[in-house]
Amino acid sequence: MPQYTPPLRDMQFVIHELFRVTEQLKDIPKHAEVDADTINAVLEEGGKFASEVVFPLNRTGDEQGCTLNKETHEVTTPAGFKEAYAKYVEGGWPALSCDPEYGGQGLPFVLNQCFYEMLNSANQAWTMYPGLSHGAYEALHAHGTPEQKKLFLPKLVSGVWTGTMCLTEPHCGTDLGLLRTKAEPQADGTYRITGNKIFISAGEHDMAENIIHLVLARLPDAPQGSKGISLFLVPKYKVKPDGSLGERNGIYCGGLEHKMGIHGNATAQLVLDGAVGTLVGEPNKGLPAMFVMMNAARLGVGNQSLGLTEVAYQNALAYAKERLQMRALSGPKAKDKPADPIIVHPDVRKMLLTAKAYAEGGRAVAIYCTMLLDKELYHPDEKVRKDSEEIVALLTPIVKAFLTDNGHIATNACMQVFGGHGYIQEWGMEQFVRDNRINMIYEGTNTVQSLDLLGRKVLGNNGATLKKFGKLVAQLVEEEGVNEKMAEFINPVAYLGDQLTKFTTEIGFKAFQNPDEVGGAAVDYLRVLGHLVFGYFWARMAQVALQQIEAGNTDPFYQAKLQTARFYFARLFPETATLMRTARSGVGVLLDTDAALA
Amino acid sequence: MPQYTPPLRDMQFVIHELFRVTEQLKDIPKHAEVDADTINAVLEEGGKFASEVVFPLNRTGDEQGCTLNKETHEVTTPAGFKEAYAKYVEGGWPALSCDPEYGGQGLPFVLNQCFYEMLNSANQAWTMYPGLSHGAYEALHAHGTPEQKKLFLPKLVSGVWTGTMCLTEPHCGTDLGLLRTKAEPQADGTYRITGNKIFISAGEHDMAENIIHLVLARLPDAPQGSKGISLFLVPKYKVKPDGSLGERNGIYCGGLEHKMGIHGNATAQLVLDGAVGTLVGEPNKGLPAMFVMMNAARLGVGNQSLGLTEVAYQNALAYAKERLQMRALSGPKAKDKPADPIIVHPDVRKMLLTAKAYAEGGRAVAIYCTMLLDKELYHPDEKVRKDSEEIVALLTPIVKAFLTDNGHIATNACMQVFGGHGYIQEWGMEQFVRDNRINMIYEGTNTVQSLDLLGRKVLGNNGATLKKFGKLVAQLVEEEGVNEKMAEFINPVAYLGDQLTKFTTEIGFKAFQNPDEVGGAAVDYLRVLGHLVFGYFWARMAQVALQQIEAGNTDPFYQAKLQTARFYFARLFPETATLMRTARSGVGVLLDTDAALA
Repeated sequence: MPQYTPPLRDMQFVIHELFRVTEQLKDIPKHAEVDADTINAVLEEGGKFASEVVFPLNRTGDEQGCTLNKETHEVTTPAGFKEAYAKYVEGGWPALSCDPEYGGQGLPFVLNQCFYEMLNSANQAWTMYPGLSHGAYEALHAHGTPEQKKLFLPKLVSGVWTGTMCLTEPHCGTDLGLLRTKAEPQADGTYRITGNKIFISAGEHDMAENIIHLVLARLPDAPQGSKGISLFLVPKYKVKPDGSLGERNGIYCGGLEHKMGIHGNATAQLVLDGAVGTLVGEPNKGLPAMFVMMNAARLGVGNQSLGLTEVAYQNALAYAKERLQMRALSGPKAKDKPADPIIVHPDVRKMLLTAKAYAEGGRAVAIYCTMLLDKELYHPDEKVRKDSEEIVALLTPIVKAFLTDNGHIATNACMQVFGGHGYIQEWGMEQFVRDNRINMIYEGTNTVQSLDLLGRKVLGNNGATLKKFGKLVAQLVEEEGVNEKMAEFINPVAYLGDQLTKFTTEIGFKAFQNPDEVGGAAVDYLRVLGHLVFGYFWARMAQVALQQIEAGNTDPFYQAKLQTARFYFARLFPETATLMRTARSGVGVLLDTDAALA
Repeated sequence: MPQYTPPLRDMQFVIHELFRVTEQLKDIPKHAEVDADTINAVLEEGGKFASEVVFPLNRTGDEQGCTLNKETHEVTTPAGFKEAYAKYVEGGWPALSCDPEYGGQGLPFVLNQCFYEMLNSANQAWTMYPGLSHGAYEALHAHGTPEQKKLFLPKLVSGVWTGTMCLTEPHCGTDLGLLRTKAEPQADGTYRITGNKIFISAGEHDMAENIIHLVLARLPDAPQGSKGISLFLVPKYKVKPDGSLGERNGIYCGGLEHKMGIHGNATAQLVLDGAVGTLVGEPNKGLPAMFVMMNAARLGVGNQSLGLTEVAYQNALAYAKERLQMRALSGPKAKDKPADPIIVHPDVRKMLLTAKAYAEGGRAVAIYCTMLLDKELYHPDEKVRKDSEEIVALLTPIVKAFLTDNGHIATNACMQVFGGHGYIQEWGMEQFVRDNRINMIYEGTNTVQSLDLLGRKVLGNNGATLKKFGKLVAQLVEEEGVNEKMAEFINPVAYLGDQLTKFTTEIGFKAFQNPDEVGGAAVDYLRVLGHLVFGYFWARMAQVALQQIEAGNTDPFYQAKLQTARFYFARLFPETATLMRTARSGVGVLLDTDAALA
């Protein structure tokens, strides 16, 4: 059976040593009092919850899946899911970084980030139930009417009710402009909503007494396309003005999908049959309102793969130390045993280090992003808010796509370490691969992320945001450019930064002639920028580690960081050599293929 | 539901136009009469069998899996599997390339290769039942006693009985030297075999009246390690001298594995409880004897991924033409429709072309290999036999590892084309990914293949075999070096060939100092050589296509080949830029990581 230990030491390193989060947030009044002890204590408790309550349900949840009673339209989640959720609510976990006005604890997003990383390591399918609730909370918090907020937010914050986002329909996923679900205004100010939604994660379950669906639909007079979409709040059970539950609403689960993974999460087909809802935000402005939820969700998806990368790594490492098979090419290492543990083999180490470098690099980027999120929303200085917002916007598609692609590489590598046993379900490794696979698809496929990055976030403002990130890189290069010990980490980052600046200008010119050039380069471009970002943070982590070692700190943690940084730059970062070449090769070779793709 | 059309046109192109197989084999007496019409007719019938009989059982086989009756130890295969196998036997398909002395049709291996590619596209899990039988046939044909051959081969050739290979035990997969199953000689010349085997594909089923297990075990006085392993024939039902079935033998299925994929194939735990067997080949020479089967099996595994790459491609192509979602970045293409088909998007094309280029490149390499196999075994000229054997030995780990890794890339890309629907089981795409995943593991993990390639096949004879392959490349470069139209295909191959020659020498020197250097470079090295091989065959395919186009042939097939070749060199081949760099980075960065991997 798989195992999981919360990576508290590494989280503390990133939070306290790499980013000095408490210092960074001290100008934000609501976080001025948050200290390292509070952070560490919450992470420790959160880690216990994840590893002791949620993780033991991961394999059984995969095996059992969810079942739909076709007569009652009720869904039963795997054994133990409901009880674990009750403990989650009892522990006050849903409220962690929510607004105190609605019962939240108001702690920094960084804590939620790390807590959710651990939950995702423990059980992605389970974690999606509270995860989507939190997304619904954020959308309602940003766009709900005072009445909606008063009635629904405290229940979402306490976790007594959960939430969903209902976007996709059978004929439209990426292209929401095509959606057909209709909302008809009623005399009492409510709407009757009718249509079919699919792929609704956590769309129906037995874990909470009510489910608050946020549903995209069209008003009768709405313009065509994406500018005619409105957002509605549609509860499973109608809610009386006093907050108590009323009668069953006309939204029910018509079927559950059979999926490659995340079996423990109910992916529902939802039928809306004149369901009663209320408008969230302005008419026809549903898509921007939903994007509040979507942006958070995209960071959340990256975090899912970060969690899976970490847990896959831990299990592969343990197996590689125990499994005896063959001798090292350079001669026996465990002479007293019938064979060497497979960790002596260089390629086994490569697979392990790939996962480790992607996990720790991803953790740094994800924590950095959520630290900026707090600045974006709550910092008193408008410029800080604006800069933070831009950097988060730039990094969001990278966290979503780069971390999930890396999760694919890493979970597959860790499964491979197990040889034939990796293919057997009871070892748990192939589940990490299957669960991770959806992360590359939902909340906007990774191709969509790359178009968002290159088309909107980079070329859309003539590279202004990219330059802001580039300044951080340039600053590090200036700081450490003459430090010989840092050269192996700084030089590749500096070189790639220069290359990417030139290539960005080049692709901008080409796209001006032919917009399809963006589509021909975007996926490779995202991975290059992903490596620049990872390279930057890996260099900073190496910097901190080197400083500690030079100051005489003998904690092997810092040697481990340096070794992993070296591995990253020697074995993973050079992927950019190919990516720069293929991104540059132009769209012609893709589009002049009508005969080939006939 | 997925669809499948046998790629007969492309097979005919490779067989008749690219390699001129009938000319190549005309010096082999047994194949002198084989003409193009025979080949085409067999492929057409084989394609019908694969697509009409076997393919419809692929999804249902995945859903149902195999079930074990724990009392009788009998396994029930998914509905229809047994009937399809009966048709397979009735059609005489098992005999296709078997020895006429035992009832075979004696046709060239190329036909078996193409037939099995189609079977693998149609249903890898089903195909493994006859596939493993064929492996057992080959091992017995090469090493069996006259009595064993007479008694067992006709039944394997007709398909009335099937065969398996029983190697793995719970504590040893790669490292067979550790195996513990014991064989005790009996007074009558037979052996009593006792032990536990796991991961035995097609190890128990209801499709044939008897199963012939080829089992590795140790004699009482055997030396330790891999030099003390012998091969035994252990039938499920004992066989009387007249060929009729006797009593049940002491080998039975103790459990079936729950796997990520290939659910339709029974992966059996086999318990041998004093089972009666006979020795195959010489005592303690079991491993070399089994390697006859293993080498064929490795080519067969590459062929499994080739089949999955092809069928995944066909389905993704069809979906990309039908699914309407968003508009092209360069403006609407299907103005009469609410959105453009997603094939307008450059990255969708990139995913499709990746699968197409890997399928067609893989088909060329695999057919080339099996053509050489016929020369290796049956050519009258000893030098041709020897040269063919060496090239096949060099290419075998590439076919096994490069094609299966490419299958992983391709099936995942094709699944990604489907967006969220790719994750849903009924669309069939995620099954191709899951089924393919085992191919990177079994019959020697892809890491083991890379060590075999770099350590044994390349450095083991000081690059002599590599030079033989290099001569083919040099010859093509000489032929076409001044043809401007071929420059885009020839130049990258010529350049990489030079680089690889230098790097091979370099790694040879480094490995002399430290044998671990081989392990640090081998996986990347294999992919570089894989691309050199694919690049060589893609250049030759472009050459044939260009010649046809220049001669006025307007069949769009040749334009399609050229476009796919261009895509391959622009977008896939440049992976070598990174691989050369990482392979060169040395083993130190992997081994000096004790703190990181503590």
